[in-house]
Parts: sequence; C-alpha cells; structure tokens
Amino acid sequence: MMQIDILTLFPEMFSGVFGHSILQKAAEKSAVQYNVVNFRDFADNKHSTVDDYPYGGGAGMVLKPQPIFDAVASLREQADSKNPRVILLCPQGERYEQRKAEELAKEEHLIFICGHYEGYDERIREHVVTDEISIGDYVLTGGELGAMVVVDSVVRLLPEVLGNEESHQKDSFSTGLLEHPHYTRPADFRGLKVPDVLLSGNHKLIEEWRNKETLRRTLLRRPDLLDKIELTAEQEKWLKEVKKDYE
Amino acid sequence: MMQIDILTLFPEMFSGVFGHSILQKAAEKSAVQYNVVNFRDFADNKHSTVDDYPYGGGAGMVLKPQPIFDAVASLREQADSKNPRVILLCPQGERYEQRKAEELAKEEHLIFICGHYEGYDERIREHVVTDEISIGDYVLTGGELGAMVVVDSVVRLLPEVLGNEESHQKDSFSTGLLEHPHYTRPADFRGLKVPDVLLSGNHKLIEEWRNKETLRRTLLRRPDLLDKIELTAEQEKWLKEVKKDYE
Repeated sequence: MMQIDILTLFPEMFSGVFGHSILQKAAEKSAVQYNVVNFRDFADNKHSTVDDYPYGGGAGMVLKPQPIFDAVASLREQADSKNPRVILLCPQGERYEQRKAEELAKEEHLIFICGHYEGYDERIREHVVTDEISIGDYVLTGGELGAMVVVDSVVRLLPEVLGNEESHQKDSFSTGLLEHPHYTRPADFRGLKVPDVLLSGNHKLIEEWRNKETLRRTLLRRPDLLDKIELTAEQEKWLKEVKKDYE
Repeated sequence: MMQIDILTLFPEMFSGVFGHSILQKAAEKSAVQYNVVNFRDFADNKHSTVDDYPYGGGAGMVLKPQPIFDAVASLREQADSKNPRVILLCPQGERYEQRKAEELAKEEHLIFICGHYEGYDERIREHVVTDEISIGDYVLTGGELGAMVVVDSVVRLLPEVLGNEESHQKDSFSTGLLEHPHYTRPADFRGLKVPDVLLSGNHKLIEEWRNKETLRRTLLRRPDLLDKIELTAEQEKWLKEVKKDYE
C-alpha cells in the first residue's frame, strides 16, 4: 500500500478531492492511504508561527525551516519508510509530465509539502526535499492544488485502482499522441452529424480514420509531441497523407 | 463580479477548494460567484444517462451532446451574459500558461466543462466550447482538478482579491524568470547557515545577489524561459557572470 502524506496549512482543502471518485476508491481498496497534516502543529514556538520575514528585506513571508524539518522527520519515523520521496510543489520545480507520474507510482511513500503564498526557506529545498515539481507555467495561490494533481495522476496508475470502465482508455500522453475525436448517439443531433465512416461498420476503415485523426489532431495542436516519439512506418505514411490536406 | 459556472458529475469535489483560502475570500468580497452544477440534471432521458458507447466501437464511454448542450444554454440564459468563455478541460487542449490566466481574468463569465474518464462527443467541442485547455502533459482522472487550477490562477488576478500580504510576490512566470532563494530566521539552523550577503545590511549587494540568483536558477532549471524574454543590459551582464561559474 502506498502511503501519501500531505503537509499543508489548509488540510480542509483536500477532503472533497480525496473523498470522491477514483482517489476515494483507491483508499477503499487499500491501494493507498492518505494522511493530511497541518505542519503548524509542529512549530516549536509558543505562537505556532510557521513563517517569518525574509533575510535581506523585501515584502512577503518565508516558511521557516523548523516546522517542516520536524514534520517530515516525524512522518518518516511513523511510516518506517527508509527513502520516502519528499516533494515540494513550487514554480521553480521540474515541469511535471506523465513519465514522472509513472516513476512516482513505483514508490511506497510520498510526502508532499504545500506552501501557501509564502516562499520556502532555501534550507528546506536543500536538506529535506528530494523532488521539486511544478505542474505548469502558471501561478497558483499555494501548493495544494499541485499536490492534488500529482496524487491523482499517480494513484490512478497504481495496480487495481482503475476498473475496466476506465483503464481501457488510450490516454493521451501515454501513447505520446493526442486522442482522435469521439462520437456517440444520436447520429444526427439537432442537425449535427457523425462522420459516415464511423457508421459504416467497416472496422478497417474506422481504424484507419482514427489513426489518421490522432495524427491530424497532434499535428495541428501539438506538433512538438511528434518530435518526441518514434512513429511506425504506417503512421509515417498516414501523417504524410494528413499533411497533404494543409498544403 | 465574475460568474464562474462548473459543469461536473462530481460537484462535491469542489467544496474544499472553493470554500477555503483565497477562493473563498474572493467570493466573500463579491469579486466572484461560484456555481457548481451536476450536468446529469440536464439529461432528458428517463435514466438520466450522460454517456453512451462510441460509434465505431472500442472500449470506453463518450459524453453525450444533449446534457451538455442544454446545461450550457441554461447557464448562458441565467447569467444573461452574451459571450461567456466555455472552457473544456482535456489533454488535447492548448497548454495552459500564465498569459492565458491573465486573458481569462478580464472576462465576466466563465463556464467550465469537466468530463470524468469518458471522452467528449466531438460536437461538444465544435459547437459549445470556446477554449480547450490542458493544464499539463499528464493524465488525470477527470477535468475537475484542471478546472480548480484554472479558477485559482484566474481568481487571484481579479482586482482586490489578493491582500497586501500576498500580492507583493514577484511571481515566477509573471516576470518570466524563476524566483531567487529565500531565507528567514534563524541564521544558523542546526548548523545550516544563511548566506552572509543577506545578513550584511548592504542593500545594493543584496539586490545584486538576488538578481544573479534569479538568473542562475532560471539558467540551471529552465533555460527555455531565458529564450522567451528580453533581458535588460544589466541582466545580460549578470547572466554572463553567472555562466562563468559553469565553464
């Protein structure tokens, strides 16, 4: 069972996300255990202060090293885990991608540190944290949503978490290409029609259409992804045909 | 006041995030109003079905057009807004970045459509949606976390939402560079020391150290960001000095 600890000043933010859907089911199946901890409880000063002014001046507060050093030490001890990954969510981190989710899904113990507007004392990064992760190039109020995103992407990869209904999906990014369009009933919805080929019953043609549309969508929306993977000879042929439509 | 509507099959997922911290404060200040709606309520069939098998076969379910077409039409009417942005969270979307958050923060009405494992009938993308957004190259269980991420990044930009305490921050990505390291008391924490320059009281030297460390961190971690912005002459000089450390 994977142990996931979250250190945050806003533990209540997590209940809605951890308490529903796949993340909840994963806990019910004992694939994962969540433990959301307020690191203010570890502050050893009488006002339970967790931040302080930055050395060198300037606006903004900085998270003190002591509460986080001690909270992480306590979680390591409780879990009896030798090498937990200690993950800091921050804009300066490595940009999160699917292969990192696959890597983290092999671990037994993940500890997430979520700051909230404040900066982190650099000694936390240098001496406690094993991985700094940014979920994207945008600014969020705190690390909490980033932690939820990483947890969701990791937990759904754990064995037996996804049922049949979900696991089938040819995930975008798992194949390295974007998914082709999908259609369901009715074939004519208020005058908007489903492409004829999908109604044809000809499986070979349908498969070819899907493969081409996968390549078309990737070409038009995320051509950078095509540079990252090796296409099969057949895919190369289809891509050539698709490109003709834009010459 | 900005109107934010969320269409989802898991409305309970949002309470923890919308009910705390900055997102809650923004609602209390009437900068924004949240409305989380289960689009199953709009299904016009007797079992309230929202998905169906894909045309052309294959595993996985596809969200039907009718409930989402009608839910969006109803929200548009209620809000009396002429041109809401209708945002679909999906891996095939445009990669989300800070400048998109700044763009969306100028709108009056945002409607988010969150699917959950299922695909979307293509007619939803073509005829209802104005923006397809992906928050990053990783696979999530559904669009809900993506919607929360976009909402958080947009709402914090609304006028008067961030107090003094938070707004000061020189956000990474707003400046186009990663932030320099921060330190706070104690100067010696269990033998780990703060750099002397920050304790020197020499503001000119401190400012120079921070500028250099900003460039150093960006150079080492995200050199791609340096290609995207124009550096000042002074920054160019500092960057040159920083690069010498790695020759």
